[in-house]
Amino acid sequence: MEQPSALRGVIAPVVTPFAADLRPDTARLVRLCRWLVARDAGLAVFGTTSEANSLSVGEKLALLDALVDAGLPPARMMPGTGCCAFTDTVELTRRAVVRGCGGVLMLPPFYYKGVTDDGLFASYSEVIQRVGDARLRIYLYHIPQVSQVPLSPALIERLLAAYPGTVAGIKDSSGDWGSVSGLLERFAARGFAVYPGSEMLLLAAMRGGGAGCISAQANVNPAAIVQLYRGWRQPDAEARQAALDALRAALVKFPVIAALKALLAHFTRDEAWATVRPPLVALNAEQRTALLASLPAGLSLAGWAPEA
Amino acid sequence: MEQPSALRGVIAPVVTPFAADLRPDTARLVRLCRWLVARDAGLAVFGTTSEANSLSVGEKLALLDALVDAGLPPARMMPGTGCCAFTDTVELTRRAVVRGCGGVLMLPPFYYKGVTDDGLFASYSEVIQRVGDARLRIYLYHIPQVSQVPLSPALIERLLAAYPGTVAGIKDSSGDWGSVSGLLERFAARGFAVYPGSEMLLLAAMRGGGAGCISAQANVNPAAIVQLYRGWRQPDAEARQAALDALRAALVKFPVIAALKALLAHFTRDEAWATVRPPLVALNAEQRTALLASLPAGLSLAGWAPEA
Repeated sequence: MEQPSALRGVIAPVVTPFAADLRPDTARLVRLCRWLVARDAGLAVFGTTSEANSLSVGEKLALLDALVDAGLPPARMMPGTGCCAFTDTVELTRRAVVRGCGGVLMLPPFYYKGVTDDGLFASYSEVIQRVGDARLRIYLYHIPQVSQVPLSPALIERLLAAYPGTVAGIKDSSGDWGSVSGLLERFAARGFAVYPGSEMLLLAAMRGGGAGCISAQANVNPAAIVQLYRGWRQPDAEARQAALDALRAALVKFPVIAALKALLAHFTRDEAWATVRPPLVALNAEQRTALLASLPAGLSLAGWAPEA
Repeated sequence: MEQPSALRGVIAPVVTPFAADLRPDTARLVRLCRWLVARDAGLAVFGTTSEANSLSVGEKLALLDALVDAGLPPARMMPGTGCCAFTDTVELTRRAVVRGCGGVLMLPPFYYKGVTDDGLFASYSEVIQRVGDARLRIYLYHIPQVSQVPLSPALIERLLAAYPGTVAGIKDSSGDWGSVSGLLERFAARGFAVYPGSEMLLLAAMRGGGAGCISAQANVNPAAIVQLYRGWRQPDAEARQAALDALRAALVKFPVIAALKALLAHFTRDEAWATVRPPLVALNAEQRTALLASLPAGLSLAGWAPEA
């Protein structure tokens, strides 16, 4: 099994812009996606950073269609499709496959806690069988601190055995190198794509056979992350990793999604970017000032054309 | 503010039957709801016990319509409508109001963890303002061990101040008497309806000014719970509470939702009841035997007519 190269590399869990009435803002999303793709970042729309679970299924279907219709490359897309109800997951996943997406990023159902591997296996199985399409590529989404539903190596093993080729990889957002390295050691040699869910572990993951990273920071700093991905064997790789870590250290002093949107608003001079959907809350003026003051020198959204 | 009496008392978070292909089974749900209403239990369809978050919004809308169309009394219904996306919550809540439901049970958005009271207040506010209907009665749903998003007394205070009359009560499923009694002491005298989320705390709650209880056990034992609710001042109340506790002790040895469905399958001689949606898993034969063996003597689904 070899991964389609189109999804290897740096992938942005693209933030979702909203209008003042909190409707998804398709035009701004298309613009951000184009800017990211031009910098060679893939598009994990509908991730945690995208506030995907604050969107209805219908809103996500409409946005996905709009992105593909706008000419963005579906092979570079890994939309999040995992919902609590498998019927919703099937609907979103089917649409992603039909529209040619390179893969989907699939949360386990996350309402019930303490569920068994049998139950999680059955959840993924229902979706895979109902979608019933050989083009389907699933990237499992392990983010236990948010979903509170971890995906165990034993479950991954079982899914890989049952659905080889379809179960294509994992995003490990635990932030725990022990978890990421364990997945790399156990699964990477089989062509299973392991992405740490942050640029923080990009260099370490590449050295361990990782596929790249899926990084919230990529929303505002894609070129630098892509540069490290491409040059991870170069002598300046450690310095590049350190620079990414410095930006991350500034971001995580604040609620990260709101902080990313504040940076987009600041650098594009377009306040609309700052809007979040509840239950998230936008940074207040004081927080934004503190965020901007704590940024490492030199960050800019190079090449961003506010009216492009 | 006085609660509509139609929702005081014992309310069942009604389990959702599924066909073999996992579609919701409307006919069996209508039958169970009729049986419950005939025993004077209210209907909290789409609760945690109902596997509501394993259903899509469209599936819930169709079931709600079917129940009302079947002649079940909407004034006795408190459907769960709280989703992660406020757009979904608005759609379900609006339908519940339009169909005449006595109230709705509203989870906070439960994907993001560690959200602020400001964010939760904004979530509830968006829904209330967008539904924009004076008939709306919201019962907040505090179930921190599942949602991982607790509702603080300070948040409740703020919602009550902003939306008096609309924010009508709370289901406290924490299982913690300290939490339930705190809510009773602080809010009950203002007509705010406090329901413990289990029959286990029914007697204590009634003594503290509670409105009744919302009890998973009511799916299989409604008459006995209603009897305690009506007779909580009687000398046999402690004995009745002890009998409910004994059944509860048997149920909680197993995954409770699957156990309730196994009991319905057993007592109605209709195996279809045992089906759950993933990520839940039905009891296996051994578990069911153990469950039946551990039931207190005398439990039966009195008056249940399998083919009614």
